[in-house]
Amino acid sequence: MSQATMTVIPKTMKAAVLTELKSPLIVAEITMPAQLEIGQVLVKIHFSGICGSQLGEIDGAKGEDKYLPHLLGHEASGTVTAIGPGVRHVRPGDRVVLHWRKGPGIEAEPPVYHWEGKRVNAGWVTTFNEYAVVSENRVTAIPADSNLEVAALFGCAVTTGFGVVQNNAKVQIGESVVVFGAGGIGLSIVQAASLVSAYPIIAVDMFDNKLQLATQMGATHIINSRNGDARQMILDITGNAGVDVFIDNTGQPAIIEMGYQITKPQGRVTLVGVPRKGSNINIYSLPLHFGKGLSGSHGGEANPQTDIPRYLGLFRNGKLPLTPLITDTYSLDEINTAVSDMRSGKIAGRCMISFDASAS
Amino acid sequence: MSQATMTVIPKTMKAAVLTELKSPLIVAEITMPAQLEIGQVLVKIHFSGICGSQLGEIDGAKGEDKYLPHLLGHEASGTVTAIGPGVRHVRPGDRVVLHWRKGPGIEAEPPVYHWEGKRVNAGWVTTFNEYAVVSENRVTAIPADSNLEVAALFGCAVTTGFGVVQNNAKVQIGESVVVFGAGGIGLSIVQAASLVSAYPIIAVDMFDNKLQLATQMGATHIINSRNGDARQMILDITGNAGVDVFIDNTGQPAIIEMGYQITKPQGRVTLVGVPRKGSNINIYSLPLHFGKGLSGSHGGEANPQTDIPRYLGLFRNGKLPLTPLITDTYSLDEINTAVSDMRSGKIAGRCMISFDASAS
Repeated sequence: MSQATMTVIPKTMKAAVLTELKSPLIVAEITMPAQLEIGQVLVKIHFSGICGSQLGEIDGAKGEDKYLPHLLGHEASGTVTAIGPGVRHVRPGDRVVLHWRKGPGIEAEPPVYHWEGKRVNAGWVTTFNEYAVVSENRVTAIPADSNLEVAALFGCAVTTGFGVVQNNAKVQIGESVVVFGAGGIGLSIVQAASLVSAYPIIAVDMFDNKLQLATQMGATHIINSRNGDARQMILDITGNAGVDVFIDNTGQPAIIEMGYQITKPQGRVTLVGVPRKGSNINIYSLPLHFGKGLSGSHGGEANPQTDIPRYLGLFRNGKLPLTPLITDTYSLDEINTAVSDMRSGKIAGRCMISFDASAS
Repeated sequence: MSQATMTVIPKTMKAAVLTELKSPLIVAEITMPAQLEIGQVLVKIHFSGICGSQLGEIDGAKGEDKYLPHLLGHEASGTVTAIGPGVRHVRPGDRVVLHWRKGPGIEAEPPVYHWEGKRVNAGWVTTFNEYAVVSENRVTAIPADSNLEVAALFGCAVTTGFGVVQNNAKVQIGESVVVFGAGGIGLSIVQAASLVSAYPIIAVDMFDNKLQLATQMGATHIINSRNGDARQMILDITGNAGVDVFIDNTGQPAIIEMGYQITKPQGRVTLVGVPRKGSNINIYSLPLHFGKGLSGSHGGEANPQTDIPRYLGLFRNGKLPLTPLITDTYSLDEINTAVSDMRSGKIAGRCMISFDASAS
């Protein structure tokens, strides 16, 4: 056993626990595993984003949750403090991005924590906790002097959003793009569409603060869907020939069906938002035979190992404004306030949990 | 037979004729065909670009030329003045781009012209002539109020350059790109790399005027290969890990081989410049098994029907600065001066033949 695994694991840590669906998280001191298993990495978390998908988890959007109680979160930055046997891709002291898409290295057994005598489950990565025991393939090392608050965005929002544009929709120079839903990932999709010179880039949302931010990230047109018929407002911009690329971040059948209708015969509909259980879409399939595309995105098919260095390189060279995306920062103790502010639409961009203000 | 085909075809027109390899073109009044055949379109030319490949044709770079004497040129803008039987995609009065890549419609028999009692050959499209009888599938209609000098660039330079980046090299956000050779197509490649947010974008050429223009089109770094070891100067910028994408516009084996060596293990070498007959490249093929890519471009695999509207849309919305690409304009009578100015490196960007200054 290597020396690194001898590092003392903190006995307890503060974490946000989901104990019951549709209920506030409980921030508690929970017990850490006593040692690291093969392929596990111990990370001290600096910043964690809150993704819309955690709201879905809390709500039980996909149905029953057999893992309760469990930890949450899937995008963060941190520092490796210890590694388990077999870990070769990171070392203690490395600054890392924590992500849910798989990178190289071992997919370890998920860790088990304890609290009040009960088992607390966790996946291969969790981030709403001071420390995280994660799989080697869920962390990617970054340069030591990286901006750690921005780095957290590479765990999901930016890598997913950019991947949706490059890998799923394959947006080409000068194509028209509709981004329906301008949350954390939607805003990154808008930015990526701008980075690849799409035009027009039409952001649609119910909240003006998000639409303002969408403009800052590169949207050339914005539509508040509360102000009228979004379909008609989109066609007023693109003309009746329709849209090249329609990207849905809502998972709502009525919006997906509308997008399917207003895309050009050779256009693509890319589904990013996850539908609620049982909410089906109803479409006429004939256009699929003649070149229309309909496909779903799995995290933008992002590849953390190659994507994070590319995007971080652009950011470090001043070519990628990411700081405007982070509009609100909370402490872990305030996480339920953060969640409710996200639900109300108060938060325009990405919401961050800061564990260590001095680390940025 | 439709009324359109009754339109009188001018009996003669001025054209530049290649009569002998490695010799000046002869600008002469030549005899037009008496009527349009199935799928042929008669176009009055407004502007024609001169592409490096015409210099290669004049030089016989690909070897013997069995079509002499013949007409030349493959990117232009014009107005349709008559259509032959079967033509459905354009009508008399349409403003069009003339291109060498195939669009929809009929591929007609190439026309035959006459001069001094001899047959003068022509391909499916030629543009160094006041009028051109071209195949329906070599013209694409554009809005009547389009900038006709810029429109000519869509015949080859822009569509090829952008296609190289999007369809061949598939450049991703934040990847490093070397563009070796900053002529008309090289500059469009630089611009496309910038439009998709590559970084760094390193332009290499022997001429400072072209490199200055490359900076204007989006190059982040420029290298004059006369000033030292281009390979080392590139690696000084990218670091020794190498380049993601190396695009060669020279066709020179030593440059291609260098590019192959300095691309990353997962990088791509894209060949755009056509090699001289008999000039082979010499490479170690093992890296091809492990993810390195080496491929040739055929006009950027451009699709005129979909690409021209996309790019023209960006231009018309002020998002695509193309006018700086056109640095020199000549009349058809001056075509040999234009060719020699291109050879000497005096022309920084794309060289245009203007047939009708009032048309712009």
